[in-house]
Amino acid sequence: MRINNILMVSPMYKELNWLLEKRKDNLINKRFRFLPEGNVQEEDYGWADAFVSFKRPNNFQFCNIRWVHSLGAGVDKILKGDNWKEDVLLTRTICSFGQKISEYCLSYILRDLQQHNSYNTAQNKKEWTSFAPVPLKEKTVLVYGTGVIGQEVARTLSFFGVRVYGISLSGKQKDFFEYVHPSLDEGKELDKVKFPDYVINTMPNTKQTVGMFNKARFSKLEDAVFINVGRGESVDHGALLEALGKGIRLAVLDVFPEEPLPKDNPLWNHPNVIITPHISAITTPEEGIDCFLKTLHNIETGKALQNQVDLIKGF
Amino acid sequence: MRINNILMVSPMYKELNWLLEKRKDNLINKRFRFLPEGNVQEEDYGWADAFVSFKRPNNFQFCNIRWVHSLGAGVDKILKGDNWKEDVLLTRTICSFGQKISEYCLSYILRDLQQHNSYNTAQNKKEWTSFAPVPLKEKTVLVYGTGVIGQEVARTLSFFGVRVYGISLSGKQKDFFEYVHPSLDEGKELDKVKFPDYVINTMPNTKQTVGMFNKARFSKLEDAVFINVGRGESVDHGALLEALGKGIRLAVLDVFPEEPLPKDNPLWNHPNVIITPHISAITTPEEGIDCFLKTLHNIETGKALQNQVDLIKGF
Repeated sequence: MRINNILMVSPMYKELNWLLEKRKDNLINKRFRFLPEGNVQEEDYGWADAFVSFKRPNNFQFCNIRWVHSLGAGVDKILKGDNWKEDVLLTRTICSFGQKISEYCLSYILRDLQQHNSYNTAQNKKEWTSFAPVPLKEKTVLVYGTGVIGQEVARTLSFFGVRVYGISLSGKQKDFFEYVHPSLDEGKELDKVKFPDYVINTMPNTKQTVGMFNKARFSKLEDAVFINVGRGESVDHGALLEALGKGIRLAVLDVFPEEPLPKDNPLWNHPNVIITPHISAITTPEEGIDCFLKTLHNIETGKALQNQVDLIKGF
Repeated sequence: MRINNILMVSPMYKELNWLLEKRKDNLINKRFRFLPEGNVQEEDYGWADAFVSFKRPNNFQFCNIRWVHSLGAGVDKILKGDNWKEDVLLTRTICSFGQKISEYCLSYILRDLQQHNSYNTAQNKKEWTSFAPVPLKEKTVLVYGTGVIGQEVARTLSFFGVRVYGISLSGKQKDFFEYVHPSLDEGKELDKVKFPDYVINTMPNTKQTVGMFNKARFSKLEDAVFINVGRGESVDHGALLEALGKGIRLAVLDVFPEEPLPKDNPLWNHPNVIITPHISAITTPEEGIDCFLKTLHNIETGKALQNQVDLIKGF
């Protein structure tokens, strides 16, 4: 496929323009339009072969667009339901999200095992009292989602001797997991992986994952830490609030159904909750451009695409 | 060498006794005495072939003791200067200290890179503001000491793509380090590894290391985090206090010349200091026993000892 006219729509449109200017040797005969979302006109969609953005604007039209590239890993805000034009290729940014999310998760797991909080309190009181840190190798982690991101989380944790189990829709075995179980109704997969110490959600937002972390699943956990780096829509937040301080000792939440998280949400000042503002896998403009250029090159030379979205699965 | 009478002196003497009772099949014809430090008599030293402890008691006598085994990794409190009896074998516990210390260091590096503190402050104010976490692979770490512990720290950090440089007395190259430089007078080795982001000390307490982290070395750092998991004696604490907030952005200190750290020490409530009470490599009784039994077996069967202390080097 040849791509000539590329429409890039992003709050970072100036920076993307500047970065691509530096790489123009790779972009002979390509024309670009860089715009913030509010400024895109019907005519721009009519002009473009390719559309690059974090989400699909409200006035979006497919016209002659043959390739859409997501600047983020999640494509739920680009797919927006079922009205996709079948012959349009959809790709997403995957790049180094796996490593970023692994480091985010590991930082909070180590914070817990090394008891940073208790030692901080002791220091404030000038108390010399030791509670032994717990080595990672004594712990069991259950990762929901065994795609690129889940696998990198598993690779990182297993380096330290953590027992890592996976849950996926298919239950297909993957490297770095002791075993991958299929997700089952009512959270019955948790009868197989009993009492994980940490549960990490890396699932995308799809019909199958909406609300999957519900009362049934949370009630099967015991003294667990729940880390959500997937999508907020996967969690029934009423059920989570009920489980906090019971089956869930601590929730580390980076994603929410509504972002920014509204000020009146009780999660903000819950003592068992750590909130971060969707930062576990920020795409830097440099990385966005790298992944875009690589994908463009692979498309034009007919190479296999590692980051093509399966429109049926939705990721 | 045959060992028959073993004197074990430790605050955990009851637990050590109980654990060895469970392993008695490995200990045919061995006799033990388990005592807390205050209760050891001259007669006990006269009875023993082997002495096992964290430190050398004040009333210690070599008598017929031919093997001393340290329950800790550091042997400075066993060597206590120069009056060692030359033909007495000294071994130390090394076991999984490397992994433990690696996880301790990594937990504080990730706490810093993932900006746990800033996000905690933001959460308290219900602020949705993102500061991008910095990936490990963009950082440079300098490890003083390239022995078993320093090497495991390097192996762990290099897994994440960190550039790890080493400093040792000899400057001998070791796996997992980009390069190992010899330590030089006045911290001139820091002219070679310029501006490391993190400096980790894993050096033992010897004549050469006393006070080595002095004004000369600290003045060559810029915006660095200093992590001490070696020995407190290696640091000139006056120079450290002066460097805090200048070349040293944060000091994470697990070891001190006097432990417990006295209540009136200004480090306790310094805003740029994190204090933990010598917990980065706690020997659990189980691990202490495992290492002791393995060393005993190697001694009696004439195998090479990985954990024999070089009395000249002092570690």
